[in-house]
Amino acid sequence: MVQISVKEAKEKITKIFMNVGVNEDEAAIIADMLVQADQRGVNSHGILSTARYVRLIREGKMIPNMNVNVVKDNGVVAVWDGNHSSGQILGYRAMEAAIEKARKNGIGVVCVKGANHFGALAYYSQMAQKAGMIGTVLGTGDSTMAPWGGCEKVIGNNPVCVAAPARNEVSPVLDMAMTVVANGKVSNMKRQGVKVLPEGWCLDREGMPTTNMDDYYTVSPMAGYKGWGMAVMVDIIAGTLFGGGTGDRAKDYSEGPALMMIAMDIKAFNDEEKYYNDVDARIKELKASKLAKNSKGILMPGEIEDGKFKASEESGVVMVLPENLKMVNDLADEMGMERISVIE
Amino acid sequence: MVQISVKEAKEKITKIFMNVGVNEDEAAIIADMLVQADQRGVNSHGILSTARYVRLIREGKMIPNMNVNVVKDNGVVAVWDGNHSSGQILGYRAMEAAIEKARKNGIGVVCVKGANHFGALAYYSQMAQKAGMIGTVLGTGDSTMAPWGGCEKVIGNNPVCVAAPARNEVSPVLDMAMTVVANGKVSNMKRQGVKVLPEGWCLDREGMPTTNMDDYYTVSPMAGYKGWGMAVMVDIIAGTLFGGGTGDRAKDYSEGPALMMIAMDIKAFNDEEKYYNDVDARIKELKASKLAKNSKGILMPGEIEDGKFKASEESGVVMVLPENLKMVNDLADEMGMERISVIE
Repeated sequence: MVQISVKEAKEKITKIFMNVGVNEDEAAIIADMLVQADQRGVNSHGILSTARYVRLIREGKMIPNMNVNVVKDNGVVAVWDGNHSSGQILGYRAMEAAIEKARKNGIGVVCVKGANHFGALAYYSQMAQKAGMIGTVLGTGDSTMAPWGGCEKVIGNNPVCVAAPARNEVSPVLDMAMTVVANGKVSNMKRQGVKVLPEGWCLDREGMPTTNMDDYYTVSPMAGYKGWGMAVMVDIIAGTLFGGGTGDRAKDYSEGPALMMIAMDIKAFNDEEKYYNDVDARIKELKASKLAKNSKGILMPGEIEDGKFKASEESGVVMVLPENLKMVNDLADEMGMERISVIE
Repeated sequence: MVQISVKEAKEKITKIFMNVGVNEDEAAIIADMLVQADQRGVNSHGILSTARYVRLIREGKMIPNMNVNVVKDNGVVAVWDGNHSSGQILGYRAMEAAIEKARKNGIGVVCVKGANHFGALAYYSQMAQKAGMIGTVLGTGDSTMAPWGGCEKVIGNNPVCVAAPARNEVSPVLDMAMTVVANGKVSNMKRQGVKVLPEGWCLDREGMPTTNMDDYYTVSPMAGYKGWGMAVMVDIIAGTLFGGGTGDRAKDYSEGPALMMIAMDIKAFNDEEKYYNDVDARIKELKASKLAKNSKGILMPGEIEDGKFKASEESGVVMVLPENLKMVNDLADEMGMERISVIE
């Protein structure tokens, strides 16, 4: 891992997106999201995606500035067609709109079809969290997983993220896909020359469990049939329900992935003071319960990422993978722009 | 397993509840729910609960007829205090209200605190499903699970159920708790004298994995930290958010469990015809994908239960556990009422 400046990374990545026609506002939002993912330690969804998005824009598969048709909107529930605009911007604007709807109605739902790669869902859920709301995001992905009992890649690992605000304790953020581990993790291990996989992670081309990297074809659904069942329900709710892409149709050259953003305003459900007192007390109670033998502690979902993010915000530096930084700097070179410098 | 008549079971269980002061309407709803769970093969949530509910009513821990205070209601979102009425009736009425709200607003949310044991969640989600909506139910349970990294029972296995309607294909229903397997399943195995547990299911008093039934203390969260994370988020959303009971406070002699009912009306999201065509096509596509080696088929969530239910509806008979039937018939005897007869 190498260290770079958070501020510098955001500024220079903003300029890279502006170079391919993204307006300054949108470019800054995308850069902010990518760098924040690395700040949270989620390098698979950080600055790594810069080159991919630039390529998609250049190939005409990602519209540089948001162009949305409102398909439906009754004030509480809306459906947008994103016309293949940036997934990040669509997600950002959709969660903004969901929050606004929730302010008026207690809950707001904004669905986006015709989206694009939307990166880490935590960012969107945390927008609601910061607005004093519970944020839920569901997304469809293109086919990477086999059904329970099947062996063909026909369904995405359809991620779900939920974030709730706390006051003095860590605000929990659960961000998960429906596979046992991320596909990216296994691919990384493969690149690093790992030959033997942990038990229960992967399936071969016949859908049989394997620990042999050479036989790896898909990652198992988490918790077996439960993960499969969840993937099916997310596929319907965040896809089929409003005409969004699912399976192979969720690829960026096809209909694109789809998103559902839900914001719930605490004020519509409870006295705010009571909620914050109760949620802090509950988190404290869970964390203070008896540890298992050899356990290092009880963590809230997202607590590790939150710790990394806060440390990065304080120091102003973020750790990124050298190969990911190289991809960004290669683009900067090509565009005749300044490279992001490594802090020694 | 023994066979009994669906109609007879519903009638006689209705009378048992009327005997302890439940009005006829509510008694019939509770009986319907219990028998339906057995019809779906979910014997852990079927007629087995009859004796428990009768006991709770007699002990004054369950109010026989629904008594609700509406704490909040803005037309889209409502919070009820159930004052320890029947969990089944509260769940039923809350989902009815959520469906009505969804008809007007596209989505409807009704939360219930001060509830009571609410049985199988599928029934409520399927109420929405039958109304042409997507139904989601989240519930808090009393402490049965240890945190990831902990060993103390401080959180419920907080079930979630989602049901979506299809037209010609099986309508999927995902009904799951956050443990690897149901606690009841392990307890049953213990009663049956099983000594060795499957790997990965259970933890001992120190939070260490065990396959020894004598050391079994808790069931592991499904998918490790993911199941723990989901249990935390359900605890907040279906509990803390609106002041509902969580952990030990979700016990029936304390605040009682809490429920959140969400209905989403397909018409607010899509053209209904398009939705039903798409959802049928998607289910067909998933089910027709290549089977794994030795696989017997790809099943939608809830498909097995749906098959059992349809067969039971057609034949008019339902399979129940003899020990569960005995508990019901013991009550009938005690109340001087007719027993449910076994069909030979």
